[in-house]
Amino acid sequence: MPDVRKVQVEKIKRGERLRVTDSLVREVPLTIFVNGREYATLMCTPQDLRELVYGFLHSEGLFQSVRDITECGIDRRDYTASVKISGAKKVLREKRLITSACAAVALSRGNLKIAHLAKLPVTLRIRKEAVSQVVHQFQKECELYRSTGGVHAAALSDSKAIISLAEDVGRHNAVDKIVGWCILNSVDTQDKILLTTGRLSSEVVTKAAAAQFQILVSRSAPTDMAVRVAKRVNLTLIGFARGKRLNIYSSPKRIV
Amino acid sequence: MPDVRKVQVEKIKRGERLRVTDSLVREVPLTIFVNGREYATLMCTPQDLRELVYGFLHSEGLFQSVRDITECGIDRRDYTASVKISGAKKVLREKRLITSACAAVALSRGNLKIAHLAKLPVTLRIRKEAVSQVVHQFQKECELYRSTGGVHAAALSDSKAIISLAEDVGRHNAVDKIVGWCILNSVDTQDKILLTTGRLSSEVVTKAAAAQFQILVSRSAPTDMAVRVAKRVNLTLIGFARGKRLNIYSSPKRIV
Repeated sequence: MPDVRKVQVEKIKRGERLRVTDSLVREVPLTIFVNGREYATLMCTPQDLRELVYGFLHSEGLFQSVRDITECGIDRRDYTASVKISGAKKVLREKRLITSACAAVALSRGNLKIAHLAKLPVTLRIRKEAVSQVVHQFQKECELYRSTGGVHAAALSDSKAIISLAEDVGRHNAVDKIVGWCILNSVDTQDKILLTTGRLSSEVVTKAAAAQFQILVSRSAPTDMAVRVAKRVNLTLIGFARGKRLNIYSSPKRIV
Repeated sequence: MPDVRKVQVEKIKRGERLRVTDSLVREVPLTIFVNGREYATLMCTPQDLRELVYGFLHSEGLFQSVRDITECGIDRRDYTASVKISGAKKVLREKRLITSACAAVALSRGNLKIAHLAKLPVTLRIRKEAVSQVVHQFQKECELYRSTGGVHAAALSDSKAIISLAEDVGRHNAVDKIVGWCILNSVDTQDKILLTTGRLSSEVVTKAAAAQFQILVSRSAPTDMAVRVAKRVNLTLIGFARGKRLNIYSSPKRIV
């Protein structure tokens, strides 16, 4: 049984604006404690959480045999997993030695930074036809994608043209490259839109809001938490932007 | 100019087996040092590295104004970035406090674990028609994907049927869920194949090899580093598996 959440969405299709129900995949932060210490927070879909914990910790090299895991308690109210592994002490100690300052990665995988984000103002409004036109342009310019099929792209637009485009194997990296380009070139993001080929997870919405983008557009789907974050920070989140169609998941007033 | 690497690949198309040249997107580990301390390693495409560093560190909340970055040296030989940020001390200290044991995440984003992996044996051989048939079955069963469009899936197959399937917002998580399912159910992975809907980055290949899978299949593209890791550990890496077509990037002898 798929784990989805129903939301109301404004769908634009052949120029018409409809209010319809859409299904979003759920996304939750699962914090894993190993032998009493916080180990990592994974943003994940809340199905098969025990399998996820076992597979993740195995991929991390924390145990060899299933018998090494003497306890694995999963609390589905606050999404925590408490794991006891015999013999993991040495591995855990070594890992800490190698990367003592890696906190950021775990932090950004969690959802801790939303609380610090202020609500975005509504100083940008664009026509729905302009969104479709810019998405079309964006796809034409994704050169690396076309030659290898292996990357995501992100782009900056003034709602008329693509101003900057970045491609990367990681969808987060492509977005970070655009944010970095704006910083390095002193570009005001408040009147621009951010485009991505990737799925809209909560982390991407958080990145966009932290960079003061008011409108984020993707041809892919958002998660439920991405929509919740977008609503909280007053960001216009657009998914499934393909051809003349698009779905507006939050703050639709910026699309006129 | 796209940053790609040409490789030789065995392409299977309408039953014919051809040797062709394919373009793969490049993937490198970029290690970022902030104020002299290792901060994170990002697996990324080696374009726009300065933009990536600025955007990533801004998304992480390490600086507000571009003037706070007093130095940013990028070494393209060993892929390191040395950044000096004025006033980042407090933020860095706080981050360490929150997640003292998060090392694993940074570790798995880097590529440090390949060295520990032994070469996989060649004890499994399957017919190319079986691969196509299993991929077809896999796509039919991706229920959550079809209803939301927002997830990746991974699956386990005995080259006849899909034995287990997992879906998640994260492509790594979906693979981890299958690995965890095998561990929890004492399933031998050596005679099974692992399928994923996601792009084949080096991390996913590493996860598959660590779990002793000999064959990894995706409908998406691999990166150049994914292919290099697959060759090193003797894993059969198959990409672009769609319809009756597929590309074999490494160890083709397992596909007969």
